[in-house]
Amino acid sequence: MTGFHEQLATGWRASGSMMCVGLDPAPGRHDGDGDAVFAFCRDLVDAVGDLVCAVKPQIAHFSAQRAEVQLERLCTHVREQHPHVTIILDAKRGDVESTSRHYASEAFDRYGVHAVTVNPYLGTDAAAPFLTKGGVIALCRTSNPGAGELQDLDVDGRPLYLHVAEMVATRWAELGECGLVTGATAAHELGRVRKVARTLPLLVPGLGAQGGDVAASVHAGATADGAGLIMSASRSVMYPAGHDGSADDIRLAASRAEAQRLHAEIRAALQAPATAPP
Amino acid sequence: MTGFHEQLATGWRASGSMMCVGLDPAPGRHDGDGDAVFAFCRDLVDAVGDLVCAVKPQIAHFSAQRAEVQLERLCTHVREQHPHVTIILDAKRGDVESTSRHYASEAFDRYGVHAVTVNPYLGTDAAAPFLTKGGVIALCRTSNPGAGELQDLDVDGRPLYLHVAEMVATRWAELGECGLVTGATAAHELGRVRKVARTLPLLVPGLGAQGGDVAASVHAGATADGAGLIMSASRSVMYPAGHDGSADDIRLAASRAEAQRLHAEIRAALQAPATAPP
Repeated sequence: MTGFHEQLATGWRASGSMMCVGLDPAPGRHDGDGDAVFAFCRDLVDAVGDLVCAVKPQIAHFSAQRAEVQLERLCTHVREQHPHVTIILDAKRGDVESTSRHYASEAFDRYGVHAVTVNPYLGTDAAAPFLTKGGVIALCRTSNPGAGELQDLDVDGRPLYLHVAEMVATRWAELGECGLVTGATAAHELGRVRKVARTLPLLVPGLGAQGGDVAASVHAGATADGAGLIMSASRSVMYPAGHDGSADDIRLAASRAEAQRLHAEIRAALQAPATAPP
Repeated sequence: MTGFHEQLATGWRASGSMMCVGLDPAPGRHDGDGDAVFAFCRDLVDAVGDLVCAVKPQIAHFSAQRAEVQLERLCTHVREQHPHVTIILDAKRGDVESTSRHYASEAFDRYGVHAVTVNPYLGTDAAAPFLTKGGVIALCRTSNPGAGELQDLDVDGRPLYLHVAEMVATRWAELGECGLVTGATAAHELGRVRKVARTLPLLVPGLGAQGGDVAASVHAGATADGAGLIMSASRSVMYPAGHDGSADDIRLAASRAEAQRLHAEIRAALQAPATAPP
C-alpha cells in the first residue's frame, strides 16, 4: 500500500482540496443495524469522494454498535472505489509497546488504513509499533473545550502541546510518517504548532458542527505550497441540517452541497491574503 | 450493576488479595480463532478466579484478531460465574465529549465492565461521559521504558503525572468513581501518586513478565487498611514459562501455581514492615 504522505499528496492533487469527511455514524440513527451503518457511510463516500483528500472513520461510532465488520467493508470500499482518498482511522490509540503492536495490527492489517490517530501521553517507544507499520497522527492540541487543562500547562516556558509537537516532529518522524491533530477551534495554537512542525501534515477536526473557522485554520496552518492540512468536517456533511426525514437521494445531495461549500471555502481561503499575519 | 469501588471492595475481601490477572490473548497463539481465544481466557479465569479481585482484558489483543464478540461472551462469563471479580476493560480510550460517549457505551453497555482505562490527555470534559456511566482508571505514570518522556516533564516544580493525579483525584472524582494507573516498574512514582491520591484505587500493571517489584509496590501504594491496589500480572500467568506445549490441564495448573505465588507474595508484603520508609 502507498505510504501515508505520498497517498495524502495524491489526495490533495486529485481533489484540489484539503478537505476530509469524518465518518461518524451516530448510534441511535441506524437502528443498531450494522449493514445500514455500512450502506449509509458507503453512499456518503460515493457522494463526496471526488471532493475530499481523506476520509476519517471514527471507530467508537462503529464499536458502540458492534459494527467492526462493517467498518472493514467500508475501508475496503474506499480503497477500491476511491483510490486517491487517504483513510485515517480515528481511534486515538496508545499503550505500552507490546500492546501497541496489536493496536497497529488492528489499524493497518485489519482495517487497511493509511494512518491512525495516536495519543502521545506514553511517549516515543509506545508509538514505535504504529510508526513502523503506517502513518501516525498524534494528538497535539485537541478541539474540546477543556483541551487546555493539560495541553496548555507551562513546561519550560511553553505549553505542553508544543513539546508534543516537537517530540513528534523530531523523534517520531525519525521512525516513520507522522502528522499532528490540532483542532479547528484553536487557530492560534494551530499557528504555533505549524512553526514547530514545519512540514508535517496537520489534521484539523471540528469544521462545520464544532464551529471551526476555515479561513483562520488555512492561514495559520497551510504550507507555502498551499497544502499541509487535512480539514475535517463530520456531522454537518453526514447529517445535513433539515434533512433528518429526507429521502436518501435528497439527503445525499444536501451532503454534497455542504461538502462543495466547504471545498470552495478552503480554496477561497488559500487564495485570499490573510487578514492578519499568521 | 454494582459500582466500581464497591465491587472492588468485594473482590479484595472475597479473594483476600489485591491481585488482578490481565487477559491478553496473544495474536498468533490461537490460530486467529475467536472461539479458541474465548475458551482459553474462560478456562484461565475459572482456574484462578478465587485468587483475584479483578480481571483486566486488554482489548487490542481481541480486536487484532477480530474477537470482539468473544470478548463480550468472556465478560458475561466473568459476571455470571465470578461475581466477586471486578472487570476492567483495558482500552486506554479518550476523545472529545461527543465521541467519548460512544466509547463509554462500548465499555459499559456492550462489554458490561465495571471500569475502563482512560487516557487523560484531553482533560476533564472529555472524561465526563465515562465517569457518568461507570468506573474510570486514568493513565498516570505508565510502565513502559519511555513513560517519562512526557509524564515526567516538570510543571511548576513537579512532574506532569502528579498534575494528572491531582486532576483525577479532585475534578474527575467529583464526577464519578476513579482510579489511576501507575506501573509496577515505577515504585518511587507510585509512592508519590499515593500521596496526592490518598484514597483512589491504583491499578499497577507490569507484575511478572514486565519485572515489577511486588513488595516495593505494596509498600509504596497500599492504603492503611491494607487495600487500595489492583496489582496486575498478564503473561506470566496466562502463558506460564515452559508450558507452551503442555496439555491444557497441566498449563492451567501452572497458571494457578503462578497466581498463588503472586497472591502469597502480595500478602507477605502487606504483613512485612517496609525496609525503607515509603
